Formats: sequence, C-alpha cells, structure tokens
Amino acid sequence: MRRLEVKSSAGDYQVVVGRGAWRSIKRLKGYSSVLVLTEPALWERWGEKLTAESGLSSLRLITVPTGERSKSLAMAGRVASDLVAAGADRRSLLIAFGGGVVGDLGGFVASTYMRGIHYVQAPTTVLAQVDSAIGGKTAVNVGANKNLVGTFYAPRLVVSDAEVLSSLPLRALQSGLYEALKHAILADAKLFAWMEGKLAKLRPDDTALLENLVARAAAIKVDVVTRDEREASLRRVLNLGHTYGHALEEATGYRRFLHGEAVAWGILMVTRLAEIVQVLDPAVGKRIAQAVKAVGPLPSLRGIREERVLGLLPRDKKAVGGRIHWVLPQHIGSVIVTPDVSPPAVFQAFDEVQNGEWNG
Amino acid sequence: MRRLEVKSSAGDYQVVVGRGAWRSIKRLKGYSSVLVLTEPALWERWGEKLTAESGLSSLRLITVPTGERSKSLAMAGRVASDLVAAGADRRSLLIAFGGGVVGDLGGFVASTYMRGIHYVQAPTTVLAQVDSAIGGKTAVNVGANKNLVGTFYAPRLVVSDAEVLSSLPLRALQSGLYEALKHAILADAKLFAWMEGKLAKLRPDDTALLENLVARAAAIKVDVVTRDEREASLRRVLNLGHTYGHALEEATGYRRFLHGEAVAWGILMVTRLAEIVQVLDPAVGKRIAQAVKAVGPLPSLRGIREERVLGLLPRDKKAVGGRIHWVLPQHIGSVIVTPDVSPPAVFQAFDEVQNGEWNG
Repeated sequence: MRRLEVKSSAGDYQVVVGRGAWRSIKRLKGYSSVLVLTEPALWERWGEKLTAESGLSSLRLITVPTGERSKSLAMAGRVASDLVAAGADRRSLLIAFGGGVVGDLGGFVASTYMRGIHYVQAPTTVLAQVDSAIGGKTAVNVGANKNLVGTFYAPRLVVSDAEVLSSLPLRALQSGLYEALKHAILADAKLFAWMEGKLAKLRPDDTALLENLVARAAAIKVDVVTRDEREASLRRVLNLGHTYGHALEEATGYRRFLHGEAVAWGILMVTRLAEIVQVLDPAVGKRIAQAVKAVGPLPSLRGIREERVLGLLPRDKKAVGGRIHWVLPQHIGSVIVTPDVSPPAVFQAFDEVQNGEWNG
Repeated sequence: MRRLEVKSSAGDYQVVVGRGAWRSIKRLKGYSSVLVLTEPALWERWGEKLTAESGLSSLRLITVPTGERSKSLAMAGRVASDLVAAGADRRSLLIAFGGGVVGDLGGFVASTYMRGIHYVQAPTTVLAQVDSAIGGKTAVNVGANKNLVGTFYAPRLVVSDAEVLSSLPLRALQSGLYEALKHAILADAKLFAWMEGKLAKLRPDDTALLENLVARAAAIKVDVVTRDEREASLRRVLNLGHTYGHALEEATGYRRFLHGEAVAWGILMVTRLAEIVQVLDPAVGKRIAQAVKAVGPLPSLRGIREERVLGLLPRDKKAVGGRIHWVLPQHIGSVIVTPDVSPPAVFQAFDEVQNGEWNG
C-alpha cells in the first residue's frame, strides 16, 4: 500500500494505492450518513467488497447509467434529488465509486450539494486511478461542450485498489495505460523503462503489476497538482498528447476512440512534432512510439479530415488571443511547453502519423 | 456613495451603494469579454444606463425569463451554452444584473463556468441589494428543493444603485423592506428607529431615502458575513423570521407570498414567540409588530394548516439530529439564537398571529 500526500488550498488529502485501499475509508468518521454514487454493474461486482472493507454497514446507494451521457447537469440534479430522498445533509459523505464519469459527476455534485459536502474518490479504472480522480477537478458536460461546467473541489481521500481493475475490459485497461505512459514520458524515465518491457503483456488481472504501475503513475499526477493546483502553467504538462487528442475525439464525435486511445494518437503526433521542430532526438521518438504501440491496437485514423482536426485544436482559454500551448517531449521524463510551433509543422506531424509515414 | 468592504477567504470585495454605483464597474479591467445576465424587461428599462455608466461598450447580453423557474440547473446549462456561443472564456467577466433569481443563478454559473470566472453582482431589488447579493452564496433550485445546489463564491464587486428601484412594483419594494427591517431588528436600533417613521410612506421612487436605507441595511449583512462567511453560527442571526417564513412559503407552494412577505409574517411570529418564552419585553414586541405592519398589507394566512407549517420548519442541516435554531428578538438591535423552545410555544405563537389574536 502506498500513501501519497496531495497538498491543496482546500485541505490536504491522501491518495492510497494498493490492495485493501478501500479500508482507509474507515478512518473517516463523524458523518451523519454515507452515500455511494456508482454504476449498477460495478456495484454488483464489487459492492460487497467495498461495503466489507470500508466497514460502512449502512451505505445508501445511488446509481447512474454507465457512459458519458451521465456526466450532465440533468444527472447532477437527479443525483442531488436522490441525495435529498436518502436523507443526505451537510454532514453526509459521498463516495464516488466508478471511473471518470462517476468521479467527475460525483465530485461536481459533492461540491454543490447544499453548497458542498465531503467526498471520497474510489476510482475503478486505470485512467481514473492515475489521472482523473486526483487533483480535485470536477466537471459535467453541457451539450457538446465537454467539461464546460465544474468546480475545483478537493476530495477527502482517494482510494485506488488495483484488484477492481480485474473486471475491466482489455480495451478499457489499455486506454488507461496510455495515460500512465503519458505520465512516465513527461516525468519519470525509470517508470517508462519499467513499462516498456511490460506493456505488451499486461492484462486486467495482473493485479500486482498494475498496483505498482498505478502507484508510480499516480505519484506523478500528485506531484504536479500539488505544485500547481489550478493549472496556472505547470499543470499544463499533463496535457501531453491531449492537444491533438481532444481534437481527434471531437472530430469523431467521441465515438471512435476511448479517451486514452485519442491521447495515444496525440502522443504519437506530438512526438513526431517534437522531432520536426528539433527538440527531440529521433531515437528517443522511436522509443516513445514503440511503447505506445506495444500497449495494443489503436482504432484507425482513417477518414478523419486533417483540416477539421486542426481547426479543433484546443486553444489556451486563459490567454487572451488563445494561442495553443504545445507540450512536446524533449527526453524520456521531460517535456517543454511552448506556443512557438509553426502551423505547417503541426500539419506535417498529423499527416505523417495519419498516413503511417512515420512510425518512430 | 458608500463603500462597504467584505472580507472573504476567496478575496475581499466592495459593496458600493448609491447613485452612480454602476460606475465602479469601470475599475475592473483586463477581461477578455464582459457579459451581462439579466431579464428582458429590466434590460429594456435600465440597459442604456448600465452600459453608459459601466463604460463597457461591448457588453454581450444573455437574458433569462423573469421568475423563480429560471433558478434551475437546466437554465444554468443554457446560460453556460450561451456564454460559449458569446465567446466567453476563463478571463471573461459576468455581470448579474437583476434581482435574487438572476443574482443566485448568475453567481452559480460564474462559479462553475470553466470551473469559475469572475462576476459582479448588480442587484436591482431592495431584497437583493440588502441581502442576497452580498455574501457569496449562489444557488439554484432542484425540483421542489429550493437552493439545493449551489456554491460559496465571492463576487469581485457588488454595485447597488437605488435609482433602479424606481421601476419596482410597490409590492416588490415592500417585500424588500421587510428584509431591511429584519436587519435593523437584529443589529441596528438606530436604523430601526429611523425606519419606523418612514416605512408607511416609502415609494419606489424615493431614491434618496432608499439609498440611505439600503446602505445601512447592507452594512449589517456585510458585517455578519465578514465575521462568519460559511454560516457556521453567527450567520444564523440572518435567519430572523426565516424559520416560520420558509415554512409558510413551502406550505403555500411559493405562490401566495413574496419572500419578504413570508419573512414579515415570520418576524411577527418569532416576536410573539420571544414574548411567550420571556426573552422579549411586550412593549418592544409591539414596536416590532407596528413597524412590520407599517410597511404595507400582507397576504393573508387564511387556510394555512398549522400542522403543515410546523412540520416544515427548517431544521439545522449541520447538526446531527437536526434541531431548530430559533432566532428570537431580545431587544431592538439584538437577537438570541437558541434551540430551546418548546413545541407548544411554537404552536401558540403561530396560532395567535394567524388568528389575529396577537397584534403586538
């Protein structure tokens, strides 16, 4: 079991990673009631274990349908109504038990229900365990606008048990591995080297390996968000692969790629981009590309119009004028953030990866 | 013009009261765009003045229908979508220009749009100017649950021009005067004495008098929220008249009373309650009752079932067990907060006021 400390202006909290992590929920005391937000299938598979380990005999359950559509204001309202019906008051505790959707929705509801109640993130996917459950960002979508509405609201605790990953579909596991790989590329050469040899063979029930992987990748996120809670600038490094990635997801209506898969393509593209603008040695670019490809097959980029993707590249919302801040790998374990990348280079990197002309 | 300073953990801000207060918006600089959330009729009457005085030539307008139904998550989503369509980014400023509904909704949207943008409260009713626009509480309703979802989120500035009150219907003005009177009863005997002689004659276009009244009543709210931002205990005094008042509103489906009118009945009832439990001299109770009645006629209490109201009395959501914290006038200018009031006394006070047996 590893315990990582997140420092937050709203109060510090621990990220507990490892088998038995859910037992840490026991330490939280003094709540008038405890409610679990989750998805039905997940609860059916893991509810008994969570109940037993958390020691909370009187959990009240609120379920939402699986899938991104649950990350909406309408669903936030429904969950708030369910909380009222279950008798939740300002001293209740909400446990968000699920993947990114449940975590983002649960955090948003917790931050706004009666102007804020305490909550715990109990993430059940690799992606949520290494990334979205850490850092206190909550969000829901509004229409086609992803994460348009949300809050900064720190959980009391994040508990990540790798055993729960054993019921993930292989593709969902792999989607999370790309995010873990992203963390290694941007901050941890040793983790990257460790992953290189294992990615091709990792399966959902490799619990010991996944526990190690999650703990090390989560530590990178913890370190970054502790140093830059509000994404002022340092936190931008976490967007490695996300600039192209977000545009790919949007251009395909969020249907073709899992989030991590779009990020994987994005990592390949910025790796090539970093080579083109000469901040990255092609030998290192090749290592990154091989690691990404070792994880598993990616949905094809076929038919995605270049102009559409490039028109959708997310601009920096905090800067007047909205330049794009590119996060480019520089070595294994370090990146640079720069707005100074020429549009032709951006085109070229996209083209070469889409057409298979560049394979690292 | 008076400038009151509110201290807030999220940043201090000023409440500017007086003719020309909207000019203070000019001092806020550096925003990528400025958007105004308001109601159509209000904008038609006052939009030109706001635009001229704020010096913001490129205001973008977002309107919501008048009325409590606009205080919903669905409307918050619509406003967020409108903000996107108007090009609002994280460096945009939102001005909530309206009464309590626009202020609460606008504050909620500002606190959650892209995880929080700056906003200004420009309240246009007495109630909003002396109460709801100050203190950083935002909220929307969820179904029948009033203010169920919201945030603590301080505005950058509150600007209250009494001239805008001149277009209020008399009944809306009077509803606000009850809240102002509430502030005087709980904290300011001089303001109470000043109001006693003027309440019966106040009209919406008594701008100079209203400016003085708003400034003094707003100062009380500023003082209380500065000392107790999160309503831990001191802020409870602001609930004077609201315990019965909320229950009356709910028992009548929020249709019979304006908020301040329900509070007015609530003030009469707790005044009588304070007499019954012997914390208030009946001579003082009489002064309070006369002041409330001087404001104007109140919608009748006829047909409201006592058991229903008493079953709806709001319990303290922060205390396990949920006792009722009664705010009782003790003198003009001071109240006590106590859970130790016997149910029969609560019944008796309600009964005597409803049946007209007690008139102070």
